[in-house]
Amino acid sequence: MSQKVRIAVLGASGYTGADLVRLALTHPNIEIVALSANAKAGQAMADVWPHFAHVPLPGLVRADEIDWAGIDAVFGCLPHAASAELLSTLIGPRIIDLSADFRLNDAQTYADWYGNEHPAPELLPDAIYGLTEFAADLLPAARIAACPGCYPTAALLALLPLFEAGLVGHERITINALSGVSGAGRSLKEANLFTEVAEAVHPYGIGRHRHMPEIEQELSKRANGPVTISFTPHLVPMNRGELETITVELMPGKTVADLRAALGHRYAAAPFVHLLPEGKGPSTRMVRGSNHCVMNVFEDRIPGRAIVIVAIDNLVKGSSGQAIQNMNLMFGLPETAGLLQAPLFP
Amino acid sequence: MSQKVRIAVLGASGYTGADLVRLALTHPNIEIVALSANAKAGQAMADVWPHFAHVPLPGLVRADEIDWAGIDAVFGCLPHAASAELLSTLIGPRIIDLSADFRLNDAQTYADWYGNEHPAPELLPDAIYGLTEFAADLLPAARIAACPGCYPTAALLALLPLFEAGLVGHERITINALSGVSGAGRSLKEANLFTEVAEAVHPYGIGRHRHMPEIEQELSKRANGPVTISFTPHLVPMNRGELETITVELMPGKTVADLRAALGHRYAAAPFVHLLPEGKGPSTRMVRGSNHCVMNVFEDRIPGRAIVIVAIDNLVKGSSGQAIQNMNLMFGLPETAGLLQAPLFP
Amino acid sequence: MSQKVRIAVLGASGYTGADLVRLALTHPNIEIVALSANAKAGQAMADVWPHFAHVPLPGLVRADEIDWAGIDAVFGCLPHAASAELLSTLIGPRIIDLSADFRLNDAQTYADWYGNEHPAPELLPDAIYGLTEFAADLLPAARIAACPGCYPTAALLALLPLFEAGLVGHERITINALSGVSGAGRSLKEANLFTEVAEAVHPYGIGRHRHMPEIEQELSKRANGPVTISFTPHLVPMNRGELETITVELMPGKTVADLRAALGHRYAAAPFVHLLPEGKGPSTRMVRGSNHCVMNVFEDRIPGRAIVIVAIDNLVKGSSGQAIQNMNLMFGLPETAGLLQAPLFP
Amino acid sequence: MSQKVRIAVLGASGYTGADLVRLALTHPNIEIVALSANAKAGQAMADVWPHFAHVPLPGLVRADEIDWAGIDAVFGCLPHAASAELLSTLIGPRIIDLSADFRLNDAQTYADWYGNEHPAPELLPDAIYGLTEFAADLLPAARIAACPGCYPTAALLALLPLFEAGLVGHERITINALSGVSGAGRSLKEANLFTEVAEAVHPYGIGRHRHMPEIEQELSKRANGPVTISFTPHLVPMNRGELETITVELMPGKTVADLRAALGHRYAAAPFVHLLPEGKGPSTRMVRGSNHCVMNVFEDRIPGRAIVIVAIDNLVKGSSGQAIQNMNLMFGLPETAGLLQAPLFP
Repeated sequence: MSQKVRIAVLGASGYTGADLVRLALTHPNIEIVALSANAKAGQAMADVWPHFAHVPLPGLVRADEIDWAGIDAVFGCLPHAASAELLSTLIGPRIIDLSADFRLNDAQTYADWYGNEHPAPELLPDAIYGLTEFAADLLPAARIAACPGCYPTAALLALLPLFEAGLVGHERITINALSGVSGAGRSLKEANLFTEVAEAVHPYGIGRHRHMPEIEQELSKRANGPVTISFTPHLVPMNRGELETITVELMPGKTVADLRAALGHRYAAAPFVHLLPEGKGPSTRMVRGSNHCVMNVFEDRIPGRAIVIVAIDNLVKGSSGQAIQNMNLMFGLPETAGLLQAPLFP
Repeated sequence: MSQKVRIAVLGASGYTGADLVRLALTHPNIEIVALSANAKAGQAMADVWPHFAHVPLPGLVRADEIDWAGIDAVFGCLPHAASAELLSTLIGPRIIDLSADFRLNDAQTYADWYGNEHPAPELLPDAIYGLTEFAADLLPAARIAACPGCYPTAALLALLPLFEAGLVGHERITINALSGVSGAGRSLKEANLFTEVAEAVHPYGIGRHRHMPEIEQELSKRANGPVTISFTPHLVPMNRGELETITVELMPGKTVADLRAALGHRYAAAPFVHLLPEGKGPSTRMVRGSNHCVMNVFEDRIPGRAIVIVAIDNLVKGSSGQAIQNMNLMFGLPETAGLLQAPLFP
Repeated sequence: MSQKVRIAVLGASGYTGADLVRLALTHPNIEIVALSANAKAGQAMADVWPHFAHVPLPGLVRADEIDWAGIDAVFGCLPHAASAELLSTLIGPRIIDLSADFRLNDAQTYADWYGNEHPAPELLPDAIYGLTEFAADLLPAARIAACPGCYPTAALLALLPLFEAGLVGHERITINALSGVSGAGRSLKEANLFTEVAEAVHPYGIGRHRHMPEIEQELSKRANGPVTISFTPHLVPMNRGELETITVELMPGKTVADLRAALGHRYAAAPFVHLLPEGKGPSTRMVRGSNHCVMNVFEDRIPGRAIVIVAIDNLVKGSSGQAIQNMNLMFGLPETAGLLQAPLFP
Repeated sequence: MSQKVRIAVLGASGYTGADLVRLALTHPNIEIVALSANAKAGQAMADVWPHFAHVPLPGLVRADEIDWAGIDAVFGCLPHAASAELLSTLIGPRIIDLSADFRLNDAQTYADWYGNEHPAPELLPDAIYGLTEFAADLLPAARIAACPGCYPTAALLALLPLFEAGLVGHERITINALSGVSGAGRSLKEANLFTEVAEAVHPYGIGRHRHMPEIEQELSKRANGPVTISFTPHLVPMNRGELETITVELMPGKTVADLRAALGHRYAAAPFVHLLPEGKGPSTRMVRGSNHCVMNVFEDRIPGRAIVIVAIDNLVKGSSGQAIQNMNLMFGLPETAGLLQAPLFP
C-alpha cells in the first residue's frame, strides 16, 4: 500500500482536471508531480482555483515543460484532438485519457462526429474503453484507458447488464438525460452564465449529441447488430450531477423484477454501483461529490416496457473519479483507493 | 372594456392562489372582492405573502364568510375533493376550478386515481375541460371551467394538433417532464426544503402520476381508442417552469416538417402558444412568469420518430394564467386581457 | 392617457436594456421605435433574447442608423464613457441615461473613479440625479435624467430622509450590500459562470466600489460637509435582487421609532417605496421583478445605533424601472404608468 | 495510528449529525458504534439520508438504547436543552457537544437567551469552549468540549488574534453574516422551503441572534471589560457556507498590514485556518465541504477602520468538522486526522 503512482495532469485548469486533483490529494497512493495548462502556465493552482487557496501543489506549466522520466501515469484532461495529439508523443507513462479521442474504436466515426481527422489513429488499438466495471480484466495490462463520457457512463452502467442478460430489446432505447452545468466546462460562453442558467431548464444537442456514438458502440458490441438510440440531454441549474431516465422494451416474458435481479447480480460486488431498494427513485443528491452510481428499475404504464433510472456525479464517476478508479486497476491498487468519500449532502 | 368581473379566490394562501391574485391585480377587468383561506382566516394577505407587503388587498376570510351575491366568478385554488365539495354548494358565480375535481369526465376514474369518491359527480356534465386553445367555443356558455393540470397543459398543447392531423401514432407516447418546485405547493414536506432540492434533481411519481389519466382522456378523444402514455416527471431546482420532452412515432410518410407545419397552422392566431423557429430549442426561461407556451419539433435519431419539446410556466399557463384566460373567454373579454406581461429574464 | 412617448433604447443587448424593453412592452404610453446594439446589429431581438421569442419588436440596429427625428426619449443602457460619447451628439430627444456618466456632478471625481476623462463635461450641468422620489420637481423640465446606480438607489432611499431630518450622524455609515448576479451584466467573465457563482457567496470591490462616490455625493448634499461611507458589496447566487444592511449612529436622544416615523412620513404618498410594519425584515422576494422598494429600521445591540435594511430589484427600481419612472415624470405621465406589476413570487 | 475511537452520535437525523457521520466514515481512527434519533428510531440511516443509500451504517436507535460501556466519545447533535439533559446522565464517554448548552459559562446568560433554565449547570465548569485553535492546550484533558456555533467560529477565528495583539478597539465591532440554508436544520418550517428561499436573500434575528452572547463572551475574555457587538445574519440561497464581513476600528497607529501580520503569525502553523494573499477576497467556494477557514483584511474607506472577512463551511468547520478536530486533540490523534478533504468545487 505504500507504493506511490507519480502522476501528471494535463489540462489542470479545467473542471475535470481540478476535480482529479481534488481526489488525488487524499489518495494514499498518488503523488502529484506535474500539472499543465498551456494558457495559464506560470500561475499557481491557487490563482486559478480558489478552493485550492490553502493547498500546496505544483505550479502550472506548459505540457512540453514536463519531465516525463519521472511520471508513471498521465491523466489527459484536454479537449478532444489536442489530447491525442499530445499524448501520442509520449513515451513512458501509462495514459488515462478523459477526452473523447480514444473512446470510439473507428477513426471514421470519430471524424464524422467530431469534425476533425483523428490525430493518432495508430494508437486506437492500444486503447481500451475504460468503463471500469466492464474493463477490470483489461485495465491491468492497458497502455491507454479511454475514460467514457459522463452520459455514456451512466447509460452503459444501467443498460449493459440488461443487454448481456438478453432482457431488453435493442430498439427504441430512449434516454432522457439531465446534467449539472459543470459538464459544460469552464469556458466563457454566454450560455453558461449564471443568469442564463439559473431558474431555468433547457434541452441541447437534441438528436445529435457527441456522446451518442459512444453509447451505441458499446451497446452494439452486446447486441446482434447495430443499435441506434434516442438521446436528449437537458441542462439543469445545479453544479454537479447527472440523471438519466431510460425507457426500454422488455423481451417477451421478462419483467421489471428480472431487470432488477440482473442489475443486482451484476453489481453485487461492485463498490461504486448500487441498485436501490425496490420503488426508491435515484437522485443526484445521493452521489454528489462521490464516485458512486445509483440506479433502479420501474414499471412503465405502457405494457411491455420498463423505466430505468440512473444517477452519477458527472465530474466524479462520470469523469475524474472513474479515471482514478481506472488508474487503481492499471497499477494493481485496490479499486476503491482514494475514492471512498461519502457524498456531500446537503 | 370598462366591465369589471368581480371575483373571489378560494385558497388564496397557496402558490396558485397567490399567482392568480398577482395577475388579477393588473387585469383591467377584474375586481378582487374576496380571498379565502380557512386555516389563515383573519390574516392580511401581506402577512401570508411577503411580496404583497405593499399591495392593498381584501383580508383572508373563511370560505363560508363570503357573500356570494356580489361575486361574478370564483376561482377554486383548493386541494382536490375540498374544491368540489365547496363549489357544489355555490349558486350564482361561474366557476373556474384549478383543482383536479372536474378534469376527469368519469367519476370512477377519478376515484381510482385520487383515492376518494367524487364529492359532486352530478356537476361533471356541467364542466368543460378548460385547455383554453381547445375550449374557446365552449367557454362562453360554460358554468364550470376545469383548468387542466400543469403537465397536461404542456403535453396536450403539443400533442393534440398532431393527433388531430393524424400525424403521429397513438402508441408509445413517452413524456419526460421537468418541473420547478412551486408545483409541489407551499405545504411543509421535508422533500420541499431548500436543502433537499437545491443542487439536485430526481424523478417522482414514476409510472403513476395523477396527471396521467387526464392526458390520456384528452388524447383518447382524438384517437380511435384508448391511449396509454408513459410519463415521468422530475423535480428540478428552480422556482417555476415546466419542460416536457416527448418522443412520438410518425405515421408512415410523415416528417418532422409536417409536424411543425401542423403546429404552426394550429397556433398561427393563438396569442400565447408559439412554434419556435426551426432548430431552436425551447427553454423555460423563454416563458418565466408569463402565460406563454413555446414548442418545437426535432428529428429523433431513431428513424420514424420525432422529439416534441414544449415549455410553460407551471404557475401561469399551467395554472393561474390559463384560469384567467378561461375567465376572459367566459365573460366575453379579449382573450389576452391582463395576461400580456413579457417573461421575466433573467 | 393616449399620448405615446416614442422611445429608442441604446444597448438593448444587455440585461438593463432588455428589462427596459420588458417594462416598455406593457407601458400604455410607450412606443418602442428603435433598439440599438452595435455588436449585434442586424439580429432580431428574439435571437439575442430567448424570452422575447414570441414578441414583435424592432430589430437591432447600430446606434448611428437611428433616425432621431422620430424619437421623443432615448434610454442609454450603454457602458460608461460610450454612453456620454454617443448621447452628447444627439439633438432632440430627452435623455434618460442608465450609465454612470451623468451621475457625478464633478468631472474630476468621475475621472478618478472611472479611469477616463469625462467625454462630455459640458453636459453635466444639464443632468439631474434621477433618484425619482427626490427629483420629482426637477424631472419635468430636465433634459438629462442620470439614473442612479442600483446600490445608490437603495442606500439613498433609506438614508436621505434620515439625513434630511437630522436623525443620524454622518460618520461611520456602514453599508453591507448583497446583489444578484444580473448586476454584473451579460459580459463573458469567468466570475459570472453558473459554476463559479452557484452555491457560494463572496465580497467584491471591497473598499473601492464605483458606486461609493455617488452615494457620498448625494449624502454630502444633505450634510454639513463631506460624508465618507464604508461600503462592501457581495455577490449572491440569485438572478435579481439587492439588499443593503446599513448601520447608522443615532443623533443624541433619537430612537429607532423616530427613524421609522421619518421614513413613514417621507414615503407616505410614494407609490413604490414602503416602510414595512415594525419588526418585519425586508427580503428581496418582496420586490422581485417589480419597481417596489421595501425598508425597515431595527435596534442595534450596540447602544446609540440603528440598523436600516432596504431591498429592491436591482434591474427594476435599481435600473430600468426607475428609468421609466423618471420618463413618466419628464413627460407629465402618471408616475406609476407601466410600473404596477406585482412582484413575482415564488 | 491504529487506535480507533468508538463513537456514538446523538441526533443523527439532523444535518449536523449526518455531516459528522460523513466525515467519520473516512476517518482512519473512528469506529461508528451507535447512532441515535428518537423520532426515527428503528429506521436505517439510508432511509433517512438518501446519500447514505449505499453505505453500511448502524441503524438508528433511541438514545436510551445505547450501551455506553463500549463508547469512548459521544457527539451531541441534539437541540439545546435536550442535549444537556441527556449528556448529564452519561458516565464514561467523553463528550463533544455541538448544541448551545455548554458554550456559555454563565447559566443565567444561557437562560436569558435560550428561554429555559440550564438543565445541568453543575457540568458547566467541566466544559471548555472548543474553538479548536484556541483550546488546543485544554482539549487533551477536557471531559466536555462545547463546540462553538457556526457564526461564532468564523467571527472569533478572525477577531481573537486581533484582540490578543491589541490591534483593534473593542467598540463598534459590526458583523454582517451570510449563511447557507443548512444552518436552519432539517425541520419543517415554511421559511425553509425551496420556493421561499431560492432567488432571494433576507436578514433574520436582527439585533438578537442567539450566537451573539457567545461571541461577546469570548471577546470579553480578551478585552478589558464587556464587549458588545452588532451582528446581523442573512439567509442566502445556497446549501452550505458562511461568510462574515466585519468592520473594526484600528488602535491608534495600527494598520491593515499589522492586522494581516498578526493573523498570519497566529495561524502560521494552523492546518485549517488560512490568511489569503493580500487583496484576495474570501469566498465560501474556497472551503465548501471542508474544514478549512479563509480570511483576509482590507482597508476601509472610512479612515481608522478595517474590514475583516472570513469564510467557513457552516456544517464542517462551523460544526461537525470542528467537533472531530476537537475529538482528535482530546484523544491524542493528529489534529488533521480524517479532515483533509479538499473543498468541493464547483
